[in-house]
This record gives sequence, C-alpha cells and structure tokens, in this order.
Amino acid sequence: MSKKQKNKPQRIKARLPKGFRDIDAAEVAATREMLNTIRGVYESYGFTALETPFIEYADALGKFLPDDDRPNEGVFSFQDEDEQWLSLRYDLTAPLARHVAANFDKLPKPFRSMRMGWVFRNEKPGPGRFRQFMQCDADTVGSASPLADAEVCMMAADALEALGIARGDYVVRVNNRKILDGVLQGIGQADERARLTILRAIDKLDRLGPDAVRQLLGEGRLDESGDFTRGAGLDEEQIRQVMAFVEAGLEGGSRADILKRLEGLVGGSETGRAGIDELAEMAAFLDAVGYGQDRIAFDPSVVRGLDYYTGPVFEAELTFQVTDEDGNKVRFGSVGGGGRYDDLVARFTGQPVPATGFSVGVSRLHAALRHLGRAHAPAQHAPVVVLVLDRDQVADYWRMVEELRAAGIAAEMYMGTSGLKAQMKYADRRGAPIAVIVGEEERQKGEVQLKDLIEGRRKAAAIASRAEWVESRPAQIAAPRETLVQTVRDMLAAQAREQG
Amino acid sequence: MSKKQKNKPQRIKARLPKGFRDIDAAEVAATREMLNTIRGVYESYGFTALETPFIEYADALGKFLPDDDRPNEGVFSFQDEDEQWLSLRYDLTAPLARHVAANFDKLPKPFRSMRMGWVFRNEKPGPGRFRQFMQCDADTVGSASPLADAEVCMMAADALEALGIARGDYVVRVNNRKILDGVLQGIGQADERARLTILRAIDKLDRLGPDAVRQLLGEGRLDESGDFTRGAGLDEEQIRQVMAFVEAGLEGGSRADILKRLEGLVGGSETGRAGIDELAEMAAFLDAVGYGQDRIAFDPSVVRGLDYYTGPVFEAELTFQVTDEDGNKVRFGSVGGGGRYDDLVARFTGQPVPATGFSVGVSRLHAALRHLGRAHAPAQHAPVVVLVLDRDQVADYWRMVEELRAAGIAAEMYMGTSGLKAQMKYADRRGAPIAVIVGEEERQKGEVQLKDLIEGRRKAAAIASRAEWVESRPAQIAAPRETLVQTVRDMLAAQAREQG
Repeated sequence: MSKKQKNKPQRIKARLPKGFRDIDAAEVAATREMLNTIRGVYESYGFTALETPFIEYADALGKFLPDDDRPNEGVFSFQDEDEQWLSLRYDLTAPLARHVAANFDKLPKPFRSMRMGWVFRNEKPGPGRFRQFMQCDADTVGSASPLADAEVCMMAADALEALGIARGDYVVRVNNRKILDGVLQGIGQADERARLTILRAIDKLDRLGPDAVRQLLGEGRLDESGDFTRGAGLDEEQIRQVMAFVEAGLEGGSRADILKRLEGLVGGSETGRAGIDELAEMAAFLDAVGYGQDRIAFDPSVVRGLDYYTGPVFEAELTFQVTDEDGNKVRFGSVGGGGRYDDLVARFTGQPVPATGFSVGVSRLHAALRHLGRAHAPAQHAPVVVLVLDRDQVADYWRMVEELRAAGIAAEMYMGTSGLKAQMKYADRRGAPIAVIVGEEERQKGEVQLKDLIEGRRKAAAIASRAEWVESRPAQIAAPRETLVQTVRDMLAAQAREQG
Repeated sequence: MSKKQKNKPQRIKARLPKGFRDIDAAEVAATREMLNTIRGVYESYGFTALETPFIEYADALGKFLPDDDRPNEGVFSFQDEDEQWLSLRYDLTAPLARHVAANFDKLPKPFRSMRMGWVFRNEKPGPGRFRQFMQCDADTVGSASPLADAEVCMMAADALEALGIARGDYVVRVNNRKILDGVLQGIGQADERARLTILRAIDKLDRLGPDAVRQLLGEGRLDESGDFTRGAGLDEEQIRQVMAFVEAGLEGGSRADILKRLEGLVGGSETGRAGIDELAEMAAFLDAVGYGQDRIAFDPSVVRGLDYYTGPVFEAELTFQVTDEDGNKVRFGSVGGGGRYDDLVARFTGQPVPATGFSVGVSRLHAALRHLGRAHAPAQHAPVVVLVLDRDQVADYWRMVEELRAAGIAAEMYMGTSGLKAQMKYADRRGAPIAVIVGEEERQKGEVQLKDLIEGRRKAAAIASRAEWVESRPAQIAAPRETLVQTVRDMLAAQAREQG
C-alpha cells in the first residue's frame, strides 16, 4: 500500500472520526494541572496510583453500559489473533475489578487505589459528547462500610473545591439503589430486566423531564426524531409510586428529612430498609465530621447509568447556570459520579467483594473550569525566537538560544529556510514574546536588536492608519550582545507586569 | 448478559491479553517525573504540546510499520458503525501528519510540537516487548533544513542527560536513507519493494548479526524456529556493496571520516550525494555548537523500521551493558529514534511538507533508568493509618485524619470492618509509616498510641526468635492527643533520617 501511495499519490482526507478531537497546548497544560490537584487530594486521603492497560479481554470488562440496547453496545471491540474478543476500556472500574481479582492475595484489604486516564465509549457523538474522554477514579475495594461510600463523596467534594469550584457551585447527590429495589418489590416488580429499564428511565429525568420518564416507565415514548423507546410497562399506580420515590427529594429538607420520607415508600422491603440504613449511617458520619448537605445531599432521582452498582450511588453536579446550544439557561450538570459495586469482583472470584468508588469526568470538568475562568494553566512559555539572517552564522545564533535557555528562558532558533519577512511572521504567529535580530551591522557593532512582539501586536491593534504605523516607533531596542540574557529577562518581566 | 451473570454466576478468568500489563504506583510516579523532565527540555527548545486522539481513520494513519508482511499488519483496527475502518494509533507521527494537514493554514510554519502518550502495536509480544507502550515525540514540520534534524538529535541527547543518563552511556546514532538509496542505485536496485526488503534486512543487524543480514539480502534466511524469510535476492557483489555501506561506521573515526568513506560508496548517485551533503551540514553545525561524536555519531547501519522516513534517520542507544534473559551481557540498546519524513503530510495535501522528529520510548527508558537506579520517583507517601477500635468514635478518628492531612501528611482512617489484628496487618501491608491507635483507655487519658511500623518491620527482620520478639519493646510511643500532628511529624522525620 505504501508503495502505491508513493508512486501514484492518492489524496487522503485529513479528518478525524466523529467524537474525537485534537487537544491544544492550553488544554493539555490545564488538564495536567487539574490532574495534579486531584491527585494531591486523593494522595492525601491515602489512595495509591495504579494504571491498567487500555485493552482488556471483552469478557473481563463485561458490558454494563446504559445503552446495551444498541447493537455495538457502547464498547469498541475487536478480535485478537487467537480470535478472542478484546475491548477498549469504557471506564476505570471494570479494569480495577479485574486487577483486584487477579492479585487478590497480594493486595492489602481494603485496597485503595486511584487511576486516571482516557476511556472510550462507542456511542453516538453529539455536541460536547465525545467518544474518548478522561476520567480520574478513586476506589476502596474490600470494605462494606457506608463510611467508605461517604469518604469517596467527601473526597470528591474536596477535589472540586481544590480545583476552584466554590462551595455552593456544586453538590454531590447521593441515593441508594437498594431503596429503589425496595420500592419495586413493593409494587411487585422485582424482575431484573424490568429493573434495568426502570433505572434507565429514571436516569433520564434530568435530560427529558418527569413526563418523559412517566412514559418510559409505562408503555414507552416517541421522541422528537420519531424513534420509539419501549417502556417498562408499569401501570398507573406503579408509575405513581416510582415517581413518588424519584421526587421524594424535590421538597428539599435535611438528609434526615429525606430519609424519613423514603422510609414511608419502601414499606416492608428488607432490601429497601437496608438501603435506608446505609444512607443513615452515611448521614450520621457526614453530620459528625461537618460535611453539610450544601456539599453532599440525598436525592432519590440519582440512579446512574452503569449496571454494576448495587447500593449507594453518587453524582457530582455543578449547579451554576450556563447557556446551552439552544440558548437556554441550564445547570452545568454532572462532572462525575460513582457508587458501590459489590458484585463486580465476584464475576471473577465467585465471592462478593464489597467495593465503592468515585469517578471524576476530567474532560467535562475542564470545560466547567474554563467556563468559570478557572482552567488555570501555568503561564504559556512561548519561546523567544532568534532569527537567522545569515546562514553562515547559525552557530552564533544557536549560542544565543543556548544562553537564554541556560537562564531558564524558552528559546528557539528559526528552523525554516525562508527570509526575514517570513521569519518575523513566524515569530508573531508562534506567539513569541521577543524576536532577536542580528544582521551584519549588529554583529559589527557587537549588538543585538530585540523586538518586543507583544508590544508590537498591541500597537498594531491600536494604530488606525498605515501612516500612523510607519510613524510610530516599532517596539524594538538595541542592546550590547553581552547583555542579551539580562535585556530579554527585563523585557519579559515588563511584559508580564503589563499583562498582569 | 449482566442478568445472566447475576442469576447464575459464571466465573470469568481475571487475566490480561498477552503484551499488556498493569503498572504500579512507583512506576506511575517515576514515569510522571520522566515526562516532566523531558517536557521541561522540549519546552525550553520551544516545542508546544499537542494531544491527538487514540483512534483515527485507518487510512489517515497509513501502514508504515516494519511488519506489514504479517496479516494484521501491526495495527489494531476495527470498523465503525458506518463500516469505515478505524485504527488505534501505532505511533505519534502519523497522527501529527494528519493534524498538520487538517490545520495547515492556521499553523505557524515550521510547526514545532511535542506529544506524549500511549501507542499500540498489534505485534507478537515477547519478554519486555509490549503491545502498549508510551512515547514522547518532538517534531519540526515545515522545515527542510538539516539543522532541524540536528536540533531534534541534540534535544534528545539533552533529554537523556536531564534524565540522569551520563554522557558516555548513550549515543544518538545518525544515518541518511538517501545514502543507502544512492548505494542501491549504484547496484541497480532502485525498486521500491526491494528497497523496503533491504531496509528491513539491515534493520536486523543489531539483533541477528551480519551473517543473517547477508542471507536476508540474498536468497533468504531460515531462523531457529524453522520459519523461512524470503530475502531481497541480491547477488554476491551487490550484497558486498550494501554491507560495505552498512559497515562503513565500524572502523570508527570522526563524523567527517565516516562521511568521506561513504562518499566513495555512493558513486555518481545524485540522491546519495544529497544524503551526504545533508549529513555534512548536520556535522558542521554539531561541531560548531559543541555536540561531539560521543553524543551524536554517524552510523550507516541505522535505518529504522518505519517506512515513512525519507532522509536522515536517528536512533538513541544506551551503551551500557545489561544481562539479557539468556544471561549474556548485551548493550541496553535503543530507547528511541526518529528521522525525516518529507512525504507524510503530502499523503493528504498533495504537496511535500518537509518534516523531522524524534520519538523517545518512555516505557523502555524507564526500564533503563530503573536498571541504573535512577528511576527517581518522589518519595512514596504511604498514608498514616488511624485504626478504628470503637466504631462509635469514627468522627473522632476522622478528626485525627483531617488534622494530619491539613498538616500535609497523607492519612487515612481504616475503612474496613475487621478487628484490631486485621487492621494492624492492613497498615503493615499498606506500607504505612505509622499506625495511630486510640482505644477507650487512651481516650480517657487524652492520649494517642503511635506505632512506628517502619521501625517495627526493621526489628521484626532483625529479631531471630519469637522469644526475643516478645522481649523487644515494640516501636510504639504514647503522646498527648493534642500533640498528635507534631509527634507524627517528628516520627516521620526520624524515619526519613534513618532511611536517608
């Protein structure tokens, strides 16, 4: 194929598959800072780094995604040479379960790990919806204690605050799937398949509103595009009871108030009762250690999309308003979540290993921080560009670059083969703060010309006419060659002050 | 499927596909440090971060891997919903070419970018040979100047030294494929297909030795496993001339000496002559700016496996000896490489865009640094563990954790549900430096018991008999509750001094 390409060039289109994107330097740097901050919080809590590979056996990851009614089931999969199915990881939880099962005897129990990295979903991409995104997870595997659930929620809250999200601009909402299971037992719907359909219907409350959820709990729903989604087939009374549960948080009140309301809904169900007890233990701990409901609230409408949760489920939501693509003011929404998944390790070991964790959606959170003007990246160090006026003097130009670099100033020698005008344009496009210009005349005089490109861009923007431009002194100074580093340093400092 | 799993558990084997592995906290931290160091060097040279996605259209990446004679051709590929073929990136160069072509008008030229991340090769895994590994690349796209080639080699050398590889323990070896093309023209072998076979034969010199290469240049070679690899079909005189080229570096000498020897081999070939001129320009620059041949050497046996190189090619080799799996002393070998790929962007744009770059094999380099004892990771901050003796006192234990954390000391409360003995075992396995123990008695007295687990492990290792163990005072002290943070800090400092 490469031979064919070479002899008879066929133009290939330079494009990316839908749902994938390139990430620029500012976002790369901001994401790195975010991960450093989150890691700092997680490490202080005693979670230890672990990195699992991107590719696993498909059966080891399992299929727990909410859209398993679609043919490809949300996971990128392909066959290995030995015909076994491999998948790209779709989250960082399923691989952790595999890791724990494979190393069970070696690991301390509970096993507390954090993992950060890219995951992949073979979903229909949409605006702001990507098929590759970054997550940062922390999990406690091997503890059945609701305190472990509370802890990851507290840590998520701490991480959001450490990233600069103000208290009041976020809330970690908590529910327990066991309570819903109790409600379903109460209405005679304990079937696993119906349960998943009901879960997914509730999960759409935020996006579609209560009427759509009622339809999805009943016969089904015809959406705007004309697609019909079959419902769970509940009757009116059943729907009323499920919706009473889902909306039990709407009236507000304290965590205790909401628990009291839920108690009335689970009736005699043991499972439902156990779910309430777990939340009560979380609430007691959260109250005692001072994590108020402004930070961690109970909300029965939280169910989370993934199938593997067995108990408490969490969702971190940013509550400030943004304008969506239709111009409506909406809450920014979810930037992460998690829950308890007591059966996931059991798929391998045959015996339940209680586990809980929280996953932060890093890419989504970066969008939020940028919206808030808090996607801090360390100052961009665009390099000082040393222009090449005489090609036989490159060693001399390079020495200037090295001197600057040795002084901690990013610098480069122009590496193209074009003339002065193109070089100036390059330095400007590059965002360089300063261009260093040395021709025959400067060399004779033992001088360097330093052009302040930031000042230059400022002036260019301010100057109305070409006459005025020609008139105005270019932001350029001559300095003795031996003061190159000091003069550049002074100019950079002055630029930093002005941009302050 | 998840329903079936739930009702009738089928045990799934917790295993990873061959060629993939989990990475522990020490390696995660060491890799992060390495990337920070490399990034520091690259940024100081003026290269700007860019991140491309893991998945691209298969045709956009192309197939340039050395093993395209195998059916799956080294790339993990799969079909999208619209039946188009997608591939996991196998390097960071092909995606860069796509990015440059897609954004050509917007980018400054030359475009200088760095990219770091995982890449995937669907190759036969072997010892130390993985199907997922990390690369860190820097490229100058849009410059035909050999100075751009020289620069990435110099930067690679600087990066290795910044990582703690001593001068003399590495060498960046440089060749130019145009010279080989000149030799091939001289022997009447300008055919593209033959050229690739010859390139690949030469590329195996390090691994298989000169006799095997001669066979691969000729009729072919039967390897130990009985597999026959068809050769390039050169006759004896042709093989002699190719080997004379390949081995022109063996006698040593300066960069100029080697160029002189090569001049004799390319004869009248214009391509060969151009290749020598490019190396001569690199040599003049390297000499002038003081990068001696101890750091950057010319070596005609370097060809690199990837198909897309069109001119200078580079290979960074670590020259110190290690013991291989058969107990033989061998050079550590390649930790990266690169070269000029003037035609890669042209696949999209139709017109050549000169480009050159260097790729560091981060995973491989980490193995090297670990071998040298230089895989520095920031001190592991295993947390202080606060044990839970009375479950009704968890808020109190948590307050201790918070006090420690607020003082910058990683700390955790035991999150399991087991008793004291299991908790002590947990803290020990966890690598915790200190366990904080507060029972009813301590609480009454307003005290905390602090167990020095590092001292404890040391003593346990030194003590021969159980009698002696019982006799010895456990490394445990009582301290007033209000001095918890200060006492822990003092103990940690003492531990650091002793381990120092």
